[in-house]
Amino acid sequence: MKLEPQWIVGFVDGEGCFHVSINRHKEMTAGYEVLPEFTVVQHKRDIQVLYALKEFFGCGVVRVNHDDRMAYRVRDFGQLVNIIVPFFEKHFLKTKKRIDFIRFRRVILRMQKREHLTPEGIEEIRKQKELMNRGRLR
Amino acid sequence: MKLEPQWIVGFVDGEGCFHVSINRHKEMTAGYEVLPEFTVVQHKRDIQVLYALKEFFGCGVVRVNHDDRMAYRVRDFGQLVNIIVPFFEKHFLKTKKRIDFIRFRRVILRMQKREHLTPEGIEEIRKQKELMNRGRLR
Repeated sequence: MKLEPQWIVGFVDGEGCFHVSINRHKEMTAGYEVLPEFTVVQHKRDIQVLYALKEFFGCGVVRVNHDDRMAYRVRDFGQLVNIIVPFFEKHFLKTKKRIDFIRFRRVILRMQKREHLTPEGIEEIRKQKELMNRGRLR
Repeated sequence: MKLEPQWIVGFVDGEGCFHVSINRHKEMTAGYEVLPEFTVVQHKRDIQVLYALKEFFGCGVVRVNHDDRMAYRVRDFGQLVNIIVPFFEKHFLKTKKRIDFIRFRRVILRMQKREHLTPEGIEEIRKQKELMNRGRLR
């Protein structure tokens, strides 16, 4: 199955998620680790679409999400910076998910500047995170 | 907002629904009416995407679905036959929703041949309907 960029944008507008976790981590200098991830979840009957996304981007993994649901997931920071973020910078999302993407991108940029290693940076990232994925149906 | 066909296919693969209702209706010759419809439901914050679909297809309505959700909906039989079905015949869905579309199309074709006006036709349409939208997440 070969995907076109606009199909991916439409599908991610519907089914994609840009997510940032902030977890306590005593070995990190600011006491927290920041984990941005891009995911697309589908019922297992459509696992072939998730593998097609993986092939298109040339990165990420397909894993069980929960129950009958599978996820395509990119967590590798270099792949987010070099592949996922540039794709959605080039191909604009059309729903309000674009705003989540913009906040996600801001977090990634702060991490590139290593700001997540300071308490102030963590606080800024937390503010972006709290504004993401609000008012979502699921 | 201008939509491209592949964006629409991707978005409908995620968010679209091909649905057939069969309701008792004493004035119909077979005792039932068959109501096929194509819908895309979104949170109201993305109502502009639903209006963009309406503009792209040049048919259908945008209405409240329930609570904070809005729906783009095409129920007019002529518009389903002449606009919606040909679009998805030309631009293939990539998820298993394609199978729902194929069954939806079969119902439309039977209705064009006026088979829904006979008890045997209603029975055949009911069989297609029962195979649709199974194993869906929602």
